[in-house]
Amino acid sequence: MIQTSKNIAIIGSGLVGSLLAIYLKKLGHDLTVFDRRSDIRNIQFSGRSINLAMSNRGWKALREVHIEDEIKKIAIPLDKRAMHVIGQEEYYQKYGREGEAIWSISRGVLNKKMIDLAENAGVKFRFEEKVWDINLPEAKIYTGDTEKSAWKEYQYDMVFGCDGAFSRVRHKMQRRSRFDYSQDFIDVGYKELTIPPNSDGSHKLDKYSFHIWPRGKFMLIAMPNLDGSFTCTLFMPFEGEVSFENIKTKEQAKLFFKTYFPNVRKEIENLTGDFFKNPTSAMVTMKCYPWTYWDKVALVGDSAHAVVPFYGQGMNAGFEDIYELNRIIHKYGNDWEAIFQEYQKERKPNADAIAELSYRNFIEMSSKTADPRFLLQKKIEKHFAAKHPNKWIPAYSRVTFSDRPYAEALAIGDAQEEIMKKIMLLPNIEEKWGSVEIENKILSLL
Amino acid sequence: MIQTSKNIAIIGSGLVGSLLAIYLKKLGHDLTVFDRRSDIRNIQFSGRSINLAMSNRGWKALREVHIEDEIKKIAIPLDKRAMHVIGQEEYYQKYGREGEAIWSISRGVLNKKMIDLAENAGVKFRFEEKVWDINLPEAKIYTGDTEKSAWKEYQYDMVFGCDGAFSRVRHKMQRRSRFDYSQDFIDVGYKELTIPPNSDGSHKLDKYSFHIWPRGKFMLIAMPNLDGSFTCTLFMPFEGEVSFENIKTKEQAKLFFKTYFPNVRKEIENLTGDFFKNPTSAMVTMKCYPWTYWDKVALVGDSAHAVVPFYGQGMNAGFEDIYELNRIIHKYGNDWEAIFQEYQKERKPNADAIAELSYRNFIEMSSKTADPRFLLQKKIEKHFAAKHPNKWIPAYSRVTFSDRPYAEALAIGDAQEEIMKKIMLLPNIEEKWGSVEIENKILSLL
Repeated sequence: MIQTSKNIAIIGSGLVGSLLAIYLKKLGHDLTVFDRRSDIRNIQFSGRSINLAMSNRGWKALREVHIEDEIKKIAIPLDKRAMHVIGQEEYYQKYGREGEAIWSISRGVLNKKMIDLAENAGVKFRFEEKVWDINLPEAKIYTGDTEKSAWKEYQYDMVFGCDGAFSRVRHKMQRRSRFDYSQDFIDVGYKELTIPPNSDGSHKLDKYSFHIWPRGKFMLIAMPNLDGSFTCTLFMPFEGEVSFENIKTKEQAKLFFKTYFPNVRKEIENLTGDFFKNPTSAMVTMKCYPWTYWDKVALVGDSAHAVVPFYGQGMNAGFEDIYELNRIIHKYGNDWEAIFQEYQKERKPNADAIAELSYRNFIEMSSKTADPRFLLQKKIEKHFAAKHPNKWIPAYSRVTFSDRPYAEALAIGDAQEEIMKKIMLLPNIEEKWGSVEIENKILSLL
Repeated sequence: MIQTSKNIAIIGSGLVGSLLAIYLKKLGHDLTVFDRRSDIRNIQFSGRSINLAMSNRGWKALREVHIEDEIKKIAIPLDKRAMHVIGQEEYYQKYGREGEAIWSISRGVLNKKMIDLAENAGVKFRFEEKVWDINLPEAKIYTGDTEKSAWKEYQYDMVFGCDGAFSRVRHKMQRRSRFDYSQDFIDVGYKELTIPPNSDGSHKLDKYSFHIWPRGKFMLIAMPNLDGSFTCTLFMPFEGEVSFENIKTKEQAKLFFKTYFPNVRKEIENLTGDFFKNPTSAMVTMKCYPWTYWDKVALVGDSAHAVVPFYGQGMNAGFEDIYELNRIIHKYGNDWEAIFQEYQKERKPNADAIAELSYRNFIEMSSKTADPRFLLQKKIEKHFAAKHPNKWIPAYSRVTFSDRPYAEALAIGDAQEEIMKKIMLLPNIEEKWGSVEIENKILSLL
């Protein structure tokens, strides 16, 4: 299928913008990527990002354009969770089967690499050029120093909005009639903290684990970097008893870390410093529809569907958008209206599904992990899945280690939940949860 | 309670903006109302509005500032629905008890009157002055000819956004972090049509009725005006078999009216003319939170909570916002931060409730009125309510003829629905729906 070469602008040089540029360039188009910020390769990447967890969907999208191996060099495979529960020894939970892992990558390191790869492929980048307005039916974009300064006009054949959860391109679409839109913030914020490497450059915690300190309403996580450090993220309510609002002084911060995270007490100086240096960020679920305008404009990635980060799927979902868009381009050739229609119709239910799954993971982590009934249910599921690995694939594996649609993972997860509701109602389930009787009961409900 | 006089700007000179200005002026404040449009009193009001149905909550808010009687002069009481069902004689359904009615008012006529009343009270109006930006923490507003022209800056003590569903004030709040927002369009549009008066100035249909031509997926309604005309609204899907999209020619429009609305066939020329002259408008449910910023900025009416029009409560809900805000002002005096906090906390659940009730009415009208089970249920409810008027007040009456909170009306409605679900499951309900047995069963479930 030969494509007529188009002159295409991509707004946003983040992960999704860079990868989309590589894909479209390979199809023979002319690509220019605009970004309002400076070239990330020339600046210190500032810390307000959770480290990324690349999983199957992300790798698949990179493989398609032959850059998987290149990116694996800057990633660390994590095949398990390392649980740091107060009053217990650190223990491990395998993520999946043998060989299944999620990969820790620093957002900054990955983004720099992706821009290099795109540039090498012939993509043009225009950094520090701010897009303020866009004429949707004509695919014109307007840039300038400020919203009120003189603007430069650019005419393209197509424009892709890869400018994230607070997308300017979507913002323009949103002012039109019949554009559905929602943004829902959760009342938990996050802050990036760092655990530096040992003096010999080695990691202070197990390098091949995703470290979690679950504390009910709040939680600390840590993911390894290549340089021996860990990028940590503290998730905590903005307001309330234990909250960002209530930690105002260095003393309060130190007490907080000492009380709740005793096994990182050697790092308290660093953590406290970061606590007051780094911003507290909010998390949002953003949904919208439609994602496209005629054959002129399309949203890809976070600009179309931002999710809370509790499933580690934000980037993976954006990369999957691109993989699927590319598949649909090959199906329809030059009929971009058909391409955009199918793209949004196919991706929207999957984007909604990963939004729902991510939000549920947040609820689960923040309010259910202390509930003994919930923990028992999880234990039964795990027990059964171990015995019947092909009959009970956990939702986490369906999302993380599969490339089946997110919507399917959600639907099967719901069906499993219905079965478990019935199982949990059985008399004396607390005692006989591991029995053959329960195993057979689950089998009969499948 | 004496208030310190504040210099207050209201953005939007619509119904809510004008009434709020009257209220705040009475409290001793200095009021300026900005509107981007021309003074509605000097122009022909263009038809893209459903006629308004003022009900109890609206009248109560007008009464508080002694303008109820004035407004009643331009309103027509409708104590019943006039149903125009194909193949049946026109028949009537009383809305409530003796003396209960909704009042038909032309939006244009009412808005002109309200601006007159506000101006007489000493409120200043600045028409054709477009607000483009607002500095929330400093209550500064910026106006100009265009978004990019030179702007004028105004400093106020407080700013109220009464600028409707597509509010510019809210738009500014929405770009901040942790602001929840959603806009959901329904796939049905509407178009205003007119039935002119008889040559002697009298009404062509019963003057004291709300006329409805229910047709399943689409529907025509008509509300009387003082001049003998009726303002009609055609609700119909944008796309699909019978849809706005599929009526492209005069012939198609005439056939449409002749087929589905045989008793208005004398009006077909007019209706067809209007059909192509008037725009097709979309309908949206808009929710957001918070509604206020510090003690500086607050949203009131549609800017805070736009609903679909199928309960006739949009304006009533906005007027009730003002009534409640005034009550809270009297409680807290000059503590505007406390006033705004209580205002938004109290009104938000009620705004969500009327949004839900309005949306459900849309679903009910467009998909359930052809369902015999649904109609039987309604018949049973009506039968029971007639026998026990104090034990079963229909949701419609709770919303329309009461001033109890919308959230309560929704909750009681849900409880009634639960009871009716059980009733509808009783064996042979089709035969014995009017029996004492069923009556006693409902009584036992209450």
